Amino acid sequence: MDIPLEFDPKSEQPLYRQLYDSVRAGILDGRFNAGLRLPASRALARSVGVSRITVTECYERLIAEGYLEARRGSGTFVRARLPELSPFALRKPDEPLDRELGDLSPRLSRYGTAVNVSLHRPTPPDTLRLDRHGPDVSQFPRTVWAKLLARRLQGSDRSLLNYAQDFRGSPNLRNQLALYLAQARAVICDPDQILIVSGSQQAIYLAARILLNEGDQVAMESPGYYFAGWTFSSQGATIVPITVDKYGIKVAELIKQKNVRMVYVTPSHQFPTGASLTLSRRKALLAWARKNNAFILEDDYDSEFRYRERPLPALQGITPDGPVIYTGSFSKMLFPSLRLGYIVLPKPLFTAFRTAKLLNDMHSSLFHEQVLADFLAGGHLESHLRRMRTLYDRRRTLLIRILRDHFGKKVSISGDEAGMYLLARFQSSLSEEQAWDRAYKAGLRLERLYWPGGVSEEKPGYIRFVFAYAALSEKELQLVGRRLAVAFLS
Amino acid sequence: MDIPLEFDPKSEQPLYRQLYDSVRAGILDGRFNAGLRLPASRALARSVGVSRITVTECYERLIAEGYLEARRGSGTFVRARLPELSPFALRKPDEPLDRELGDLSPRLSRYGTAVNVSLHRPTPPDTLRLDRHGPDVSQFPRTVWAKLLARRLQGSDRSLLNYAQDFRGSPNLRNQLALYLAQARAVICDPDQILIVSGSQQAIYLAARILLNEGDQVAMESPGYYFAGWTFSSQGATIVPITVDKYGIKVAELIKQKNVRMVYVTPSHQFPTGASLTLSRRKALLAWARKNNAFILEDDYDSEFRYRERPLPALQGITPDGPVIYTGSFSKMLFPSLRLGYIVLPKPLFTAFRTAKLLNDMHSSLFHEQVLADFLAGGHLESHLRRMRTLYDRRRTLLIRILRDHFGKKVSISGDEAGMYLLARFQSSLSEEQAWDRAYKAGLRLERLYWPGGVSEEKPGYIRFVFAYAALSEKELQLVGRRLAVAFLS
Repeated sequence: MDIPLEFDPKSEQPLYRQLYDSVRAGILDGRFNAGLRLPASRALARSVGVSRITVTECYERLIAEGYLEARRGSGTFVRARLPELSPFALRKPDEPLDRELGDLSPRLSRYGTAVNVSLHRPTPPDTLRLDRHGPDVSQFPRTVWAKLLARRLQGSDRSLLNYAQDFRGSPNLRNQLALYLAQARAVICDPDQILIVSGSQQAIYLAARILLNEGDQVAMESPGYYFAGWTFSSQGATIVPITVDKYGIKVAELIKQKNVRMVYVTPSHQFPTGASLTLSRRKALLAWARKNNAFILEDDYDSEFRYRERPLPALQGITPDGPVIYTGSFSKMLFPSLRLGYIVLPKPLFTAFRTAKLLNDMHSSLFHEQVLADFLAGGHLESHLRRMRTLYDRRRTLLIRILRDHFGKKVSISGDEAGMYLLARFQSSLSEEQAWDRAYKAGLRLERLYWPGGVSEEKPGYIRFVFAYAALSEKELQLVGRRLAVAFLS
Repeated sequence: MDIPLEFDPKSEQPLYRQLYDSVRAGILDGRFNAGLRLPASRALARSVGVSRITVTECYERLIAEGYLEARRGSGTFVRARLPELSPFALRKPDEPLDRELGDLSPRLSRYGTAVNVSLHRPTPPDTLRLDRHGPDVSQFPRTVWAKLLARRLQGSDRSLLNYAQDFRGSPNLRNQLALYLAQARAVICDPDQILIVSGSQQAIYLAARILLNEGDQVAMESPGYYFAGWTFSSQGATIVPITVDKYGIKVAELIKQKNVRMVYVTPSHQFPTGASLTLSRRKALLAWARKNNAFILEDDYDSEFRYRERPLPALQGITPDGPVIYTGSFSKMLFPSLRLGYIVLPKPLFTAFRTAKLLNDMHSSLFHEQVLADFLAGGHLESHLRRMRTLYDRRRTLLIRILRDHFGKKVSISGDEAGMYLLARFQSSLSEEQAWDRAYKAGLRLERLYWPGGVSEEKPGYIRFVFAYAALSEKELQLVGRRLAVAFLS
């Protein structure tokens, strides 16, 4: 018995516990080196006066935890690689798990089963991504932000680091937002109708959760926004796809629907066609929602960037007391990793949304809400958006020219009057799937249109892809053109 | 039959479910006031044309959930205080400003109805809050954080401001966490099992959503953690309360349960009793979960702060391949407004959780995940925790002395060996409700124990409250004592 173990007979700790602690501590503080052989259970049991089962149980647990290893025939040893030092090198979790637990999927809820699908698709490092709808974060005024952030972090108001007092979100931010939305989007609300959320995806999720039961019908634009469709269907809602033409969603088609509880729309800049919903259709949409006790979820995701005429006011602003849930995010205006968005709610819906947000993740970061409020109050958003509008407009024009240079009459562009992407339609003998794969091999990741009902309306001989250009430099856009030519024309 | 219940014979919902929903909704949206007497089961059965068993079963479930109470001989009544909602006041949603829309609540989903209650209760500014379980943020090393933050913000890696490439959370952070959890909590996992979330509330929410269908049974400690109970019940799960004694949750009681799909536990430091679950019970708990194909949701919310013996390893670490979902957060270690927490998952569950998180809010802030990873890598967490342990220990000792000074033998303390709160039991002729109100008037906001299922085990003549002391200065703690004496003794 050459290893020192501390035992205290008077201790309330059971002997098992003391033995375990003592061996584990010896290993952790390095007194028992890797490879050290532990005494045989019988010998140790005798020398410290515990039952042999106590010792073997203790050894077995330390083996299970990765501190010791049993070598057949030769005894029990301190492991070379301890979990503490390299837990990842410890084991392949799949194997023992699958052996012990088997496939857990049958034990998921219906929602769990619906989301038990990986949306992850690896992309080679040098791939140019046309499917990432983020801003050019390299242009973000980080110095201004850092200054505001440091001021608040060093500031006297420690409560910013704490849990929020107001779970609706920072009052300053909601006040600033009410002003901004009124000016920029003709949204009419008071700050008490604004709930701060962690990006507009959370707004879509909460709306689906709060307004839809499994089996309920939700209408959405077709083609439409992939993650919205996914959010609805994963919750068991039935999606009713409504056709989109160049005036936006075909409200006449929607009006035929009697059991739709909610419709998800992007009226300012329809995703992905870029259409702007006409005023007459907006009014018809509102009238339909009222008549059918349905809600309108208005996603105003990128209308800050318009390159031609003035935008139509938001639906919410047409009838401020209508059944409209209005949402937007700062991911495209500022930077996605800020994870801040907002919902403007009819008063009667506010409590349910606030409590749902609370049970979902308590609240968003008060600290960053306050820095954002400072950013807005300082007028930095306006000037930043002005600069970005010019930059994105230049890239947009360049991309169109590049596509024309390579594809001439074989390409037609739409949806480019606003936002950070455009829709390009190519005359081609390839199927969209073939074209996507070829582009992928050529180092481009394109975005295919999402058809909620699965009913594509592509004309044979034509293929369409979304091009998110805002974050790509002029040099990268040139490369996009060349790679695309290789993929589609060669 | 004077209470309006909506039934739809054509609905696919079974009558039992319709009756349950209808009564529950009536209570939650305030149409059925506290004390309202429900019709006798036979009468109701006749009037709505269902079997009497259907009605009694529905009443029994609502009684078990704490919505109704049976008074021997006189019938079934709506409870005065709905356990789900206490200690917060149940308030009807804000009056709709908009006449046209009217009350939208009937158009909410079942989940929407369940969350259509305000948890908001204003607190006068000079109130000392014993119910806020946050750290002392004034002690947070803001200069260190600001430096790390500025470095990343000014740094060359712009991708930190963008959408995450890896939706599981920053790889650096997950690597750091795997090491930290192995060392501090004996959690054995590799970084691929770690999902970064926005605080542990999101972990609880996601687990409930992914593993529980409406009507499924979920067990939890009684008394237990209020927001966990609310998260489960709002999703339509049936809570099975399991008694807690000084060794933690009574696993023997749980073992009698055959249909429980998940159990929510706080083994390291049971909330609110502070008990630490014994090793034998931990093993029994794991064995039960395996045998019954149930999941264990282990919330390790504050075990970083221990003032006496070293903690038992996390359940997850006892059998790393077990059906354990382990969660923790940085809200108490660092600061709540960071909104970062983590889930350690069995591999077979990972995809469902990652995709659910993605559809919930895409991902947390990559930027802050990276700064946090830097903070961990720099060893700042360790030193910060050491400092806080000393500070909280001092405050803990002081609060105990203060309570003894004022209440002498009339007070007994428990659950103070770890964490940031303690449980005080007072000998008093007041009811807990009276005592709470008196304290509130005296400028204290106390926290009552939460009894899932509404089955309180208070002994007459005794009242118990949770005291979250960590964030209160010594001066404030003195004031707590004086105000409490005024409230309870005068």
